[in-house]
Amino acid sequence: MIEMHPIGYVRTDAHNLPRHWSVSDVEGTLVIDEAYREGLRDIRPGERIVVLFCFDRSPRFTPELLRQKPPHRDREYGVFSICSPRRPNPIGLSVVTVLAVDGTSLQVKGIDMLDRTPILDIKPHIEAATPSGQADEK
Amino acid sequence: MIEMHPIGYVRTDAHNLPRHWSVSDVEGTLVIDEAYREGLRDIRPGERIVVLFCFDRSPRFTPELLRQKPPHRDREYGVFSICSPRRPNPIGLSVVTVLAVDGTSLQVKGIDMLDRTPILDIKPHIEAATPSGQADEK
Repeated sequence: MIEMHPIGYVRTDAHNLPRHWSVSDVEGTLVIDEAYREGLRDIRPGERIVVLFCFDRSPRFTPELLRQKPPHRDREYGVFSICSPRRPNPIGLSVVTVLAVDGTSLQVKGIDMLDRTPILDIKPHIEAATPSGQADEK
Repeated sequence: MIEMHPIGYVRTDAHNLPRHWSVSDVEGTLVIDEAYREGLRDIRPGERIVVLFCFDRSPRFTPELLRQKPPHRDREYGVFSICSPRRPNPIGLSVVTVLAVDGTSLQVKGIDMLDRTPILDIKPHIEAATPSGQADEK
């Protein structure tokens, strides 16, 4: 068993959230705990970042959820091929664009998380390597 | 506090691992627990998948790790702008290519995880939306 602790939470006024970040232009704020301020110092407006978060309002995972039919698809898929919030470990991943950095609050666009969703990590967004192997990786 | 349970582990013979999946062509196996077999049914060779895993051999996070100098960079960065395994929550993210599916074992290429690393989740790899908003999202 592995223990995780939220580093902050999502704040958004949106109630009708898109089903996925890739089709979202909803704005919101990532409110990060003051203790992590120094960890945010190199995040700049315009950057895309990966946000890992906890699906804290999802039901407990049961074997019937190993296959699920996404609302916008016409058949069931294995849970590891879809982005359903009902997963063995309730970790969500969204790629959002930073609009502004205000202390430990990041204004972002591309939100598909519910208001008050606990955030577990932020990572740089890294595209796949080019054929020469020179991905823009930090 | 949020509890996570591994769904399987990474198996690789490689000892000199590249620093990042984006520059890796190391092969290995994702050995998933039999209980999750049905969740893997739609994963196909040639697909890229996102693997979330636990940096189980990293030291406990302390405030001095909020800024770190990656070995191949010339200055310190905030931890949320780099892919260091020493993070507030020890979650790693790698994008790998599926070579073959054999029951609950996935042969993959692009490994940057240590042998026996616990796996927490597998997700489809989704590129950013096109301007028309039509990302290939499940």
